[in-house]
Formats: sequence, C-alpha cells, structure tokens
Amino acid sequence: MFRATGNYGLLQGNYLFSEIAKRIEAYVAKNPDADIIRMGIGDVTRPLVPAVVSAMHKAVDEMGAKETFRGYGPEQGYAFLREAIAAGDYHARGVEVAADEIFVSDGAKCDVGSIQELFGENTVVAVTDPVYPVYVDTNVMAGRAGKYDAKKGGYEKIVYLPCTQENGFVPELPATPVDVIYLCYPNNPTGTTLTKAQLKVFVDYANKNGALLLYDSAYEVFISDPDVPHSIFEVEGAKTCAIEFRSFSKTAGFTGTRCAYAVVPKTLEYKDDTGSTVSLNAMWNRRHCTRFNGVPYITQMGALATYSAEGRAQVLESANYYMENARIIKAGLEQAGYAVFGGENAPYIWLKVPGGDSWAFFDELLKTKQIVGTPGAGFGNAGEGYFRMTAFASRENTKRAVERILTSTR
Amino acid sequence: MFRATGNYGLLQGNYLFSEIAKRIEAYVAKNPDADIIRMGIGDVTRPLVPAVVSAMHKAVDEMGAKETFRGYGPEQGYAFLREAIAAGDYHARGVEVAADEIFVSDGAKCDVGSIQELFGENTVVAVTDPVYPVYVDTNVMAGRAGKYDAKKGGYEKIVYLPCTQENGFVPELPATPVDVIYLCYPNNPTGTTLTKAQLKVFVDYANKNGALLLYDSAYEVFISDPDVPHSIFEVEGAKTCAIEFRSFSKTAGFTGTRCAYAVVPKTLEYKDDTGSTVSLNAMWNRRHCTRFNGVPYITQMGALATYSAEGRAQVLESANYYMENARIIKAGLEQAGYAVFGGENAPYIWLKVPGGDSWAFFDELLKTKQIVGTPGAGFGNAGEGYFRMTAFASRENTKRAVERILTSTR
Repeated sequence: MFRATGNYGLLQGNYLFSEIAKRIEAYVAKNPDADIIRMGIGDVTRPLVPAVVSAMHKAVDEMGAKETFRGYGPEQGYAFLREAIAAGDYHARGVEVAADEIFVSDGAKCDVGSIQELFGENTVVAVTDPVYPVYVDTNVMAGRAGKYDAKKGGYEKIVYLPCTQENGFVPELPATPVDVIYLCYPNNPTGTTLTKAQLKVFVDYANKNGALLLYDSAYEVFISDPDVPHSIFEVEGAKTCAIEFRSFSKTAGFTGTRCAYAVVPKTLEYKDDTGSTVSLNAMWNRRHCTRFNGVPYITQMGALATYSAEGRAQVLESANYYMENARIIKAGLEQAGYAVFGGENAPYIWLKVPGGDSWAFFDELLKTKQIVGTPGAGFGNAGEGYFRMTAFASRENTKRAVERILTSTR
Repeated sequence: MFRATGNYGLLQGNYLFSEIAKRIEAYVAKNPDADIIRMGIGDVTRPLVPAVVSAMHKAVDEMGAKETFRGYGPEQGYAFLREAIAAGDYHARGVEVAADEIFVSDGAKCDVGSIQELFGENTVVAVTDPVYPVYVDTNVMAGRAGKYDAKKGGYEKIVYLPCTQENGFVPELPATPVDVIYLCYPNNPTGTTLTKAQLKVFVDYANKNGALLLYDSAYEVFISDPDVPHSIFEVEGAKTCAIEFRSFSKTAGFTGTRCAYAVVPKTLEYKDDTGSTVSLNAMWNRRHCTRFNGVPYITQMGALATYSAEGRAQVLESANYYMENARIIKAGLEQAGYAVFGGENAPYIWLKVPGGDSWAFFDELLKTKQIVGTPGAGFGNAGEGYFRMTAFASRENTKRAVERILTSTR
C-alpha cells in the first residue's frame, strides 16, 4: 500500500510568494480598480535585450530547418555556453574555472533546491536568517530539517545564523558544528553584501572543518563596490569547499526564459557515507545526466548573446536602470524617516518596520498605498521587523511608489 | 564535516547512453571516416514544424517588447497551455482531466525522476524489465533500491516484472506486495503496447491494493491501433490510482526544446507516513512551486501551437514519417531473418539477438555495418538477448541501414 512521505506535512504554510499572491488577489477582489504597484516578488520588468532577442530568433530558425535542427543537447549545457561563462564570468576576473566545472540549468532555484540530493544522512544544514525560503523548504521536504519549533522560530535541526541591524547583517560563524552553509550574496532579502575579507572567514571555516559552502550569487551583476566579490572563487581556498550558483534571471531578465548555472569545482572532494572519497563534480554530473535533459538550445543561444560586447552593454544598461530605481527607493524611504539597508550592490531594499510586525506592515502598505512588498517574517524569524522592497519595477512606478509613501504621514 | 550520500556509489556503471556515446567515440577515433548511421538514442531528427516555429518567433518578439514581456510564469505552466492540453489530449478522447490536474514541466525524464520525492519511507517499487533506466536509477540515488545483486541481475529491493517473447511482452502482476509500479506504454524499449483490457488488470490491482501506478505515455502519438489506449485515464478506475507523464519531445520534436507534462488527478488520495490523508495533486503542486520555476514562455507558446488545426496536422505528419521508417526497419529485419517485435504503435523495434549477447551485437553492428543501436542488456536483465533500433533517423538513413543489413549475410 502506497504511503506518501510525511515530510511535506512539516512545511509551514504556503510558499511565501503564493501567500502574498493570495493576499493581493483578495484585496483586488474587493477593490477591483486599485492601482497596485508591485515591489514584492523579485521579478524583472524590462524586456529581453535586443542582442538576446536576435540570437533567439536565429536559434528558432535553426530549429525549424532540417540541416540545423538540434535534438537532445548535452545535459550539462552546450560547450559554447559553458566556455563563454568560464571566460566571461570567471577568467575575465582572474578566476580559474574550467568549462567542465560549469553545469547549465533551468534555474538557480532548481539548482539550490536539488543540490541537497547529494547530502549524506544526518547532514546538518546552516542558513542565514532571514533566508531565501527554498534553501530551508527543500531540506524540510527531504526530511533533513526535523520539526518546526515555534519557540525557536525555526526547524529543530537547522542552524540559523541571524543577520540583523545589530551585527550589520554579517552572519557569525556557527556556534555548533555544521556540515553545509548556504550563503546568498548580494543577499536576498536584505540587499546587503560581504566583503572579500568577511567571506574569507567562512571559506577558512569550511576548509578547516570539512564543511561545504553553497554560494548563491544570483545578484552579482548589481555589485558596484570593488571590495565586494562577484564570485566566492575570488576568495583563496574556495575551490576546495564551495559550490557557486548563478543565474541569467536577474542579470539578463531571464525570469521567464529560464537559464542558470552551477559551478562545481573538480577540486571538491569529500567522503561519502560509506567512507569512499567522492568528487562532487562527478556526482552533480551524474545527477544532471540522470534527472535533467538540458536547457533548450534556443535559450542557451539567448544566454550566449549576453557575452557578446553588444549583449553585455545592453544587459549592464538594464542592471543600471534597476540600480537607479534602488537609489530612488532608498532615498525616498530615508526621507520618509525609515531606517533602510541594502540597495547599493543589490536590487533589494530592506527597511525596518515601525512597530515590528511585518505582515501587518504588508497589509497596511497594500491597503493605504496600494504598494506590494515582502514581509521580512516570510524569510525567517530574524526577518521579522523588516520589510523588503525590490527595484525591479519600472522607473515610473518606482517614482510613483515613493511619492505615495511621501505624500501622507505614516 | 560534510559527507556525501553513499547512494550514488550503488549505481551500476555509467548511464546507458553515456556508455554508448563513449563506445561510438572510441570507434570514430580509430575510424574517422566511418559513415555511422545512428539508430540508438531515441532522439528525433525532423525539425520543429512551421506552426511551432512561427509561434516561437512571435513569443520571442513579445519577450523583447516592454508591453508584452513576461517574467516568472506560473510554476505549473500557463493556463493557456494547461487548458489546451486538457481539451486536446483528454476531452477530445472523452477523458475528463481538469487543467489544474496538469503540471507543465521541462521534460518527462525530469518528472519521472522527481516523482519519487513524494514516496514515503520503505516504499517498494516495481518496474517492468527491460526498463527505461531513469525509473530505477533515480530510486537508487534516493536510497530506495538497496544494493545491486549480480545474481538477481537487479537491485535487491526493486521488484522486476519481466517482459519477454515468452509472455508476449505483457508483464504479470507482482508476485509480492509492491507500493508503486512504473509502466511505460507504448513501451520504451520494446515498442510493444498494452490493450485497454491488459492495462485494466493493473488499474484493478492498484485500486484493490492501494498501490500507485506511474504511467509514462511519452510515445502515445505513434499509436494507430484503436484497442491501445493513449492515456491510462481511458481505463475506468485509473483516476484513483495513477499519475500520467506525457511529453512534447517525441510528439512534436521537442527533445532539444524541452516541454512535457504530468497529470496528477485530484482524486489521488493516500495516507502519508504519519497516517494523515494527503492529496498527491497538492503535494506535486508544492514540489513544483518550491523546486521548479516553470517552463520558458517561448517554449510554452511553441507547445500551444501543436494544438491548433495546422500544428496538429504538421505534427501528425512527422509522426507518420517516423512510423513509415519503423515499418521499413521491421520489414527489412524480418527479411534478414530476425525475430522482431514492436514498431507498430511505437517508434522502437525490438529484435532478438542471435547468440543472445546484446553488447557484443552492438559492437559487431557498429564495426561491420556502422549502425548504432541500443543493447537490450542496458535496459535490464530481461533485456539481454534483445536489441533496440529506433525509427527516428531520416528516411534516407533508415533505408541505407536496412540495405546494409540485407547486403551481406549475418
């Protein structure tokens, strides 16, 4: 008799963004004419850049002609894209990453959710708090998190590393032994960053303790500060303890086009549960080959176009557009008297909620200003008291949102 | 200290198609001028049909314009595609499937590999033998298969249902209790089918014993026999015991374009490991939302085009082209004196290997005829003694392969 896993029953409520969507839907049902400005979900609004559009048209034509049609591609991604990534995102910054350490996928969310399939039994996972929910939920679904402990404000087996105004949003090293640490920098949701020196503390910890770092740098394109690394592999020692996740979603507006990649160094060697030494690169390769069938050729050709001089310039123009939005939001919120963090090397602004109840602030902002943001509590216990706004709206809507916030007293 | 899972170490050798690729590569290295005809991997060769190409161009333009750009879509797929699938693939055959029972994905391989994430502890899995390797390997990687037992010719905890010439390639019901049965019809690799009456035996078994059927009908477009069901939901009772997997890969040549879907009826209710009653539709929805971010809009628009009258006609023309190849191969092999199965409602021809050693036959066919097929042993113990040839080559290559087989004695 079939029994389903009981682990899904341990998940707390709905996936954060589904809950937000539901609340918006309920509000719109009652207020059908509401002019809502969405600064909640981290979704881009600018179209694919011309270089990408042109490359994809060409690829569609190739797929429509007998001579140039392509069926199954390599599960790991076409060599042309893996090589362009190695050259454009790594060699250009003086970082040695080989093409066969790069695995192209259909999303960083998919990759960070799947990577835990490689974990051994009894793996202890640490996450920063607040945290992108996927890191935690995928471990809950795999039975690795234990039960939710309301008193702790988190899952019993997960180690949380609080990032708050008090520690300048820089996590401390875990106080108890952990095997894996998920890090996201530039950070979602706080928009804050780690300097190379701050990140080196984690790399040294991981190498010393045999831990594994999972580094999500989906927002690296927004970095302007030269002290902030774009890749964890800019930090000495990272290639023996870290996997990096990158995405074209925010870089090139691919949220609805789906392309990302993971970098799994061949120097990453650990023991497995049986005591054998294993290569995580080989394991991830096997995982990719067995459970994935590659990213569409058309999409990979679009991603490739972002590495041409023309494509690169167009993509950076979009990133700058969003970062100007971030500047406008940050300045507006500060003018309105809020304490505001992030927003300088990341498209997220993290504001301190007066009164401290972030879902109440969500509801109030929706009701009184018709602005949608994301309540910090949705990202974890230490996120309560904060609120995330994104810079991905249009310039016009960004300005209108700031005006609405400034035009009446709080 | 991080430990990787030991389960990957239990996998037997390379993924089948990687091993084949390696042997071809070695042969080509020694014989650079060899004119190889590939009838091994089940990959299509005909280009995307004009209706799909035109829909994708339109979608690329939409993604390149501010007014029509789309970011994150629904993880489950756009309503337009889910509704077209429900109407075109189910209602048109008198089968009631609702749009919210359909989950669009980037591949049936991905879906059949991920579905085991919903299984409870101690789930006993049955597969037909020979079998599409992904069903087994994904359970091995999740630690559900136990060790490989060379004497048994399979994994200790997996129940194998042999399909051979002796039983007409119709599996018998499991002799010991099982919780899940993977069925693929039209079958990969044998190319054989089950009639509605034969499939009903499994549906009745599942309903009686509370088992779950996982029905992979990725090849349904090739069915011409009116007694052979296209969907398991044509069989009474299936909506309380079965999940169905479908793909645009073979139907519409999407192997390099990536679109598929799973049908998870809302009537599928089981207990979970804690004794709670759970909906597999709700669980799969949660899985999709947490670990997946949807199929590219451009791809979904391409898939939608296969449901227009024009698209449907073009797609069926391609399917007929491949089935004419199957007829040519089958006739040629029979003329050459082989015992041949399948190939009538499926693009796969399953031939009995003289002598019985299928990898030796693979090597010999490559060496003497420069034809690539797939050794039956790669699909499981009961596949030994057989060999798979596919109908996906061009007409010209199909004819040339048959000529080569006929022009010299075996």
